[in-house]
Amino acid sequence: MTINFESIGFVKNNITEKKDTNWGNDISELVINEELTRGLTGLSEFSHLIVITYLNEAKFEIENHIERHPQGRKDLPIVGIFAQRAKDRPNPIGITAVEIMNIEKNIITVKGLDAINHTPIIDIKPYFPQYDCRENVRYPEWINVIMRDYF
Amino acid sequence: MTINFESIGFVKNNITEKKDTNWGNDISELVINEELTRGLTGLSEFSHLIVITYLNEAKFEIENHIERHPQGRKDLPIVGIFAQRAKDRPNPIGITAVEIMNIEKNIITVKGLDAINHTPIIDIKPYFPQYDCRENVRYPEWINVIMRDYF
Repeated sequence: MTINFESIGFVKNNITEKKDTNWGNDISELVINEELTRGLTGLSEFSHLIVITYLNEAKFEIENHIERHPQGRKDLPIVGIFAQRAKDRPNPIGITAVEIMNIEKNIITVKGLDAINHTPIIDIKPYFPQYDCRENVRYPEWINVIMRDYF
Repeated sequence: MTINFESIGFVKNNITEKKDTNWGNDISELVINEELTRGLTGLSEFSHLIVITYLNEAKFEIENHIERHPQGRKDLPIVGIFAQRAKDRPNPIGITAVEIMNIEKNIITVKGLDAINHTPIIDIKPYFPQYDCRENVRYPEWINVIMRDYF
């Protein structure tokens, strides 16, 4: 099925180059389309939100990306694209829980978003642990390697 | 910006009617397009995944949905669509962390997915707390009311 979306806004920050680490202290503005500003009512009661981005610079080529080393690191196992968070995936969507620093009119300032300047935003959702946190989670050891300096 | 995706699969379960509660024990199959089966390599090392769905039966009308009572409940405050998880949003995307029960070829059996039969799947991502869990989270009291019987 073909799915068509219109972006609801875009990311504004000073990150112009893709990178694999050290996003944790980056500050970004989420500039939401003005006609949707009323959709932000009540969001300031949440400390965090989930940003759903369209990674428009990603390119998925099935032969190169369906299985690969995470971050191209040969010291990590080859895994499928759906077992990693790499951007070059069939539908290049990013999902990141970030801290809300400020909301003013249609602009939300957040901390820790792993997206470069001008990235289109598809959706934002309030973060709450009952929905978004799971307990007794199992994951492979290479995740610890990847995440050590990610945020 | 216009964004075009092709679904990577669909949800198969016995839930044919939309509902607001009691998804926690529902079992669903995620039927992934066969040509993407290799993308699941290594996923069985994770206990949970995030399912990104296209809520194709949702309809967003700005005048009716930009601000509303969550679940239409008059006992809850009116909040903006981006401060709630309601499906009738500008881009109707659902994001849910679910438990993996089984993976066989291109079919993933999961528990706790809040989506009805035939819902298109946009993406799946492995769940790991370093990326997806946040601590010291603040949220309004009405979330507790909504989530009491949700899963």
